[in-house]
Amino acid sequence: MAQKPIRAVLFDVFGTVVDYRESIIREGKRWNRQKGININWPSLADDWRSAYQPAINRILNGEKDWKPLDVLHREELDHLASRYDLSCFTEEELREINRVWHRLEPWGDSVTGLEKLKRHFIIAPLSNGNVALLTNMAKNSRLPWDLILSPEFIKSYKPDPAVYQMAYQFLGLEPDEVVMAAAHPSDLQAAAALGMKTAYICRPLEHGGHNITAAAASEENCDYNARDIVDLANQLIETQVMSTKRDELG
Amino acid sequence: MAQKPIRAVLFDVFGTVVDYRESIIREGKRWNRQKGININWPSLADDWRSAYQPAINRILNGEKDWKPLDVLHREELDHLASRYDLSCFTEEELREINRVWHRLEPWGDSVTGLEKLKRHFIIAPLSNGNVALLTNMAKNSRLPWDLILSPEFIKSYKPDPAVYQMAYQFLGLEPDEVVMAAAHPSDLQAAAALGMKTAYICRPLEHGGHNITAAAASEENCDYNARDIVDLANQLIETQVMSTKRDELG
Repeated sequence: MAQKPIRAVLFDVFGTVVDYRESIIREGKRWNRQKGININWPSLADDWRSAYQPAINRILNGEKDWKPLDVLHREELDHLASRYDLSCFTEEELREINRVWHRLEPWGDSVTGLEKLKRHFIIAPLSNGNVALLTNMAKNSRLPWDLILSPEFIKSYKPDPAVYQMAYQFLGLEPDEVVMAAAHPSDLQAAAALGMKTAYICRPLEHGGHNITAAAASEENCDYNARDIVDLANQLIETQVMSTKRDELG
Repeated sequence: MAQKPIRAVLFDVFGTVVDYRESIIREGKRWNRQKGININWPSLADDWRSAYQPAINRILNGEKDWKPLDVLHREELDHLASRYDLSCFTEEELREINRVWHRLEPWGDSVTGLEKLKRHFIIAPLSNGNVALLTNMAKNSRLPWDLILSPEFIKSYKPDPAVYQMAYQFLGLEPDEVVMAAAHPSDLQAAAALGMKTAYICRPLEHGGHNITAAAASEENCDYNARDIVDLANQLIETQVMSTKRDELG
C-alpha cells in the first residue's frame, strides 16, 4: 500500500531550530561588558533552561494554572536573581533580558533547511513558546514559517497529546501526513503515540557539548534521523519524489 | 505626545487580499469546458458569497453551533446544488470545488505590498477563514504572512470583538500598535471600537464592478485610506520614518 504523502513538517524550536544556550550567553556577555559585571552566563543559561521542565510539569499536573512561556521565563529569572546577583539590573533591563527568548539565534543550517522544506511542505513551529515569542523570533532570525502553531492556542503545553492533535487538526490533516521534528526523544514519542511521523534532529551541542552521548543514543525508533535540518529536507524531498514515482508506476 | 509605533498589520482576506469572485469564475469556466456544461459561475459565485454573512450571523446569534468556514462553504454549496444543477459533479468533485477557497488568487498588488510591509511590520491575515484554508491559500498564492490568525482559534467569527482582541493579545501588543486593513467598513468599525488603527483598502472590483459607489463612500473615518496594499505599505512606512525622526528630534 502506498504511504500517504507528507504535507507538513512541525518543529520543536528550543534546541532543535535555535541555539538558546549560546544566544543567552552571547547577550549576557554584552551585559557584562556594558555594566562591568561578571555574571556566569553559561551557568545562568543552564539553570534558566533547567527550571523550564518542572514549571511545565506543574501546569500539566494541575498544580499550577497555565501561563504563557514568557511569564514562566520571567518567574524563573526572578528565582535566579539572588544566586546570580541580578540586582544591578533595572526592571526595564530585566524585561529586556527576559525577551532574549524572542531573539534566539538559529543553528547554522536552520534557515537554509527550512527554506528548502517550505518549497514542498507546510512548515511551522510546534514549540512551547507563546505566539508572540515564536513570531518575534521568526522575524528576528528570518525563520520562514508558513504559520505559527503554539500550545497557547489551547492553553496547554507539550507533551500534552491535545497540543499535537490541535496542530494536525487545524491544518486539516491526518496525523500520518505530518512529521514532528525535534532533538528531544520525549517530544517525538508523544507525537508517534498519535500516529504522526517523527524526525530526530541531532543537536549534540544543545547543552554546550556536555550531552553528546545522550544525543547519539536517542536516534532510534524514528521515521527519519537527520544530522541537521538541511539533511532532513533532503531526506523528505527524496521520500516524496520516490513515492510519486511509485504511484506513477503502480 | 508621540504616537506608538505600529508593530503589526492584520488583513481581512476575502475581497481585500484575494479576488474570490474572479477566482471562482475562472475555475468554474474550466469545469464547464471539461464537462461540456453551462453553469453560470458569476451568478453562482455571487450567491455562494451572499450566503456567507447570514450563516456567520446565525452562529454569532447563537442560533447555530460554530463550524469552520470550510464546512459553512460546503453547506452553502449544497444549498445551491439544485438552482445550478450541480448533479453532474461527483462527491469528490464537489469537495474539489469547495476547496476553491483554498486557491483564491490575490489582487495584482497584494504579494508585492505584503512583502514590502513584512520588512517593517508583523503581517497576518485576520480573516474568517479557518486555519487550513488560510494556510493553503498562502502556500498557493505565495502570501508571505508571518503567522496565520484565525477566529477558529477561539471558535468564533468576525466581527465578534473577541476575535480582534485575541489577535493583538496573542501578539503581545496593545490595540493601537496594530492596524486592521480591510475593504469592508464593518470590519474596520469593529476594530476601531477596540482602539485598533484602521486602514481602508479600496477594492472597487470585489463584486465584479457592481458596487463601486459603496466602495468609494466608505473611505471615511479610517486612519489610513489606501488605493491598494502597495499604497498602504508606502503610507505606513512613511508614518514610521516620520515618527522615528520626531522621536530623535524630540
